[in-house]
Amino acid sequence: MTRYELLAQSMAAEIRSGNLAPGSRMPSLRQIIAQHGVSQSTAARAYYLLEQWGLVLAEERSGYYVAELSKPVKAAGATTGETASVDISELVFSVLDAAKRPGIVPLGSAFPSPLLFPLSRLAKSLGQGARSVSPWSTVVDLPPGNENLRRQIALRYMRIGISQPAENIIVTNGALEALNLCLMAVTQPGDIVAVESPGFYAALQAIERLGLRALEIPVDTDTGLDLDALAAALEKHPIRACWFMTNFQNPTGVTLSAAKKEALVELLAKHDVPLIEDDVYGELHYAPNYPPPAMAFDRRGLVMHCGSFSKNLAPGYRVGWASAGRFGERVQRLKLMTTISASIPVQAGIADYLEHGGYERHLKKIRLAMHGQRDSMIEAIRRWLPEGTQHTRPEGGYFLWLTFREPIDAMALHRLAIERGISVAPGPIFSASHAFENCIRLNYGHPWSPRIDAAIRTLAELLAHPDVRARS
Amino acid sequence: MTRYELLAQSMAAEIRSGNLAPGSRMPSLRQIIAQHGVSQSTAARAYYLLEQWGLVLAEERSGYYVAELSKPVKAAGATTGETASVDISELVFSVLDAAKRPGIVPLGSAFPSPLLFPLSRLAKSLGQGARSVSPWSTVVDLPPGNENLRRQIALRYMRIGISQPAENIIVTNGALEALNLCLMAVTQPGDIVAVESPGFYAALQAIERLGLRALEIPVDTDTGLDLDALAAALEKHPIRACWFMTNFQNPTGVTLSAAKKEALVELLAKHDVPLIEDDVYGELHYAPNYPPPAMAFDRRGLVMHCGSFSKNLAPGYRVGWASAGRFGERVQRLKLMTTISASIPVQAGIADYLEHGGYERHLKKIRLAMHGQRDSMIEAIRRWLPEGTQHTRPEGGYFLWLTFREPIDAMALHRLAIERGISVAPGPIFSASHAFENCIRLNYGHPWSPRIDAAIRTLAELLAHPDVRARS
Repeated sequence: MTRYELLAQSMAAEIRSGNLAPGSRMPSLRQIIAQHGVSQSTAARAYYLLEQWGLVLAEERSGYYVAELSKPVKAAGATTGETASVDISELVFSVLDAAKRPGIVPLGSAFPSPLLFPLSRLAKSLGQGARSVSPWSTVVDLPPGNENLRRQIALRYMRIGISQPAENIIVTNGALEALNLCLMAVTQPGDIVAVESPGFYAALQAIERLGLRALEIPVDTDTGLDLDALAAALEKHPIRACWFMTNFQNPTGVTLSAAKKEALVELLAKHDVPLIEDDVYGELHYAPNYPPPAMAFDRRGLVMHCGSFSKNLAPGYRVGWASAGRFGERVQRLKLMTTISASIPVQAGIADYLEHGGYERHLKKIRLAMHGQRDSMIEAIRRWLPEGTQHTRPEGGYFLWLTFREPIDAMALHRLAIERGISVAPGPIFSASHAFENCIRLNYGHPWSPRIDAAIRTLAELLAHPDVRARS
Repeated sequence: MTRYELLAQSMAAEIRSGNLAPGSRMPSLRQIIAQHGVSQSTAARAYYLLEQWGLVLAEERSGYYVAELSKPVKAAGATTGETASVDISELVFSVLDAAKRPGIVPLGSAFPSPLLFPLSRLAKSLGQGARSVSPWSTVVDLPPGNENLRRQIALRYMRIGISQPAENIIVTNGALEALNLCLMAVTQPGDIVAVESPGFYAALQAIERLGLRALEIPVDTDTGLDLDALAAALEKHPIRACWFMTNFQNPTGVTLSAAKKEALVELLAKHDVPLIEDDVYGELHYAPNYPPPAMAFDRRGLVMHCGSFSKNLAPGYRVGWASAGRFGERVQRLKLMTTISASIPVQAGIADYLEHGGYERHLKKIRLAMHGQRDSMIEAIRRWLPEGTQHTRPEGGYFLWLTFREPIDAMALHRLAIERGISVAPGPIFSASHAFENCIRLNYGHPWSPRIDAAIRTLAELLAHPDVRARS
């Protein structure tokens, strides 16, 4: 961590602990410089970060103040949600639709704030890319995709010690398409697919849609996937594929250690079962290094690694990829049969940005923002939510997972929160069996603000609501 | 038709008939003006068209000459193709792969020449679109898609007399995704789907991939789909959906008359069977008006109309749409579950082009080019291919369909042609039963040239090859 990040973190701790009261004046830049023996730019940057984290407010000419404590969020005039029993897709869509409503506090959203991305720089690269592609690329850039982009992606693999020729990379319409194509490439209707529990709902939707069966493997909120449970399941069931998220897992935020990733790859190799590895949050690591994905340990081409620029660079551009090991050709053909290719000028635009746009600088900034936002979220959870509420402390990404001590009905909480202008992602959407009624996923991918703090406080109120206390 | 188009066509007829010998000098502009009583610009434009059609060559300072007759295309150093028996996907991929090879004469390609498109104007619109979209559009432009683009598409429906609210339009990654999603929306594995025979191979691939069963309905090369055969099939089989191309059908180029379209819609309404209507070539009509799709006659929301900008404006941008009638919500959800959304800046860019780029002007130009290319292709077919070879005469699009009088092995012709640097699309890829061994599809979507003419002549040679004469 740099000097100014350390300084900002220590000041953030002071604020969060209450030692610096809300509304009180923060030390001036000059005082900070003197007290901490730092340069002027270090002090200024630290305050910039604290502002970004929503912990201080700058008043023109008079300095910085500790941000006010929040007020509960008022109802946004929403109607009461549905109460009928629903399948997993219905649950998911009701949550996603709610998150789209303008003005909602998007704690249930799956997207980070679009304001964190270099959109105008990207637009420049996109224009550049579109002008520079050969007209004939509409024929030759069919799957696997734009050569320059695939080379740039291969270079990023190289940074984390994975040698992956550009030829192996298939560009897709975001990671979700890559994951879906990988799943289609290795399964037939009726097959069993192992997924995480709780796990990413899109995996469950894909399994439902393709007529497959899901076998849920428990995820420990500290250590991640339960490998013993997986080993037992592999002995007992003819599992045809696994779909796991090894870094900053959605919804828990937990990461498998390198040793566990290696053990996972060995276990699957023993059973000759392919792993669809969803690694879309990997670049959003707070520690200095990217935690190598399971693919780094694969020697048999069994790991199908899927990544994306949607979470860390260009949301809405819809560019992801699969490096699908021995299944590469099958995935490429499925791509050609379903959507032909990712948008060619967009591929060229992203390639241009990766070469010239300052990707590393951008990543550093967004990681730092999310790291601070995580701490602000955790602090708000501690401040407002009932004692005994457990939360994860992700080392990357922008989701954390709450488990309440008292039994609650997370679906009821979701519905009531929507009426108050807040979305949350209720536990049951992360499991085919609609388990995790006692859990919610919170998104901290938005710059911290009193409004978000107030939303957490409102959730605390709603937890006492009779509909939430009495499970349906 | 304008004056200069009429003039160009009459001169083209003279050239094609042999009245103007290859290599001979064409009348000067001044002579044309005097002979035909036209203005200078009309004469100049007519020559411009004749050049584009590959019928005349301009020599600087000395005027125009009738293009030389072509020489057979030489082998491009290709290796011999595979001869193993293959399924429909393998057949299709071998043809598509061959068409990608650089330097090939792309008669088997599914794409028109990318040089016919306003790519640099589009790049400008793309940059403009990317700069103008709100960052929040990455959330709100999730399916159904960019509002401005959907409004522009709705306006195009309005031009052909179809009232289609923008809300009904779901933007997709090209039409192929739209078609696939529509198919998924109305079928379950095991269901029967009626397709055209010969028909678009991607429909067969989708049916194969989704575990459906194809029921082939004959297509007459003059009048299109055999409605009596369809009526009988509907009585006999529990058909769950139809996937038909009603305008400038791929591969035959044939169009259903308005009366037949209306009868088709009535027939399907009687059986309550949805129609997935693939109308990606509709904008490429040579007659003044767009032939209204079957959807124009639908009163029950049973027609799912799929369109695209890939064939007529922006190949490689991968933007298409579905207007899916009563199945709209289901299609939208499937889109969200599989690839989330089409690229958002690209949607905005296409919308910008449609508003400001001169789309009508461009369409007029590309229709004219293809119309002339069709005539040049037909002329070359008559000149070089054996007597009795039947061909369609499409009124739009850029495919025509050949049926040879003597039995041939179209797969062998395809393989031998590849060795000579020419791709063709062999009949068997357009049928699940690998019928149409006696047929090939030719692409005339590229500016006419002596090289293409020579390729047709080479095909004539290859038709006499023992491998082609002896069916395997």
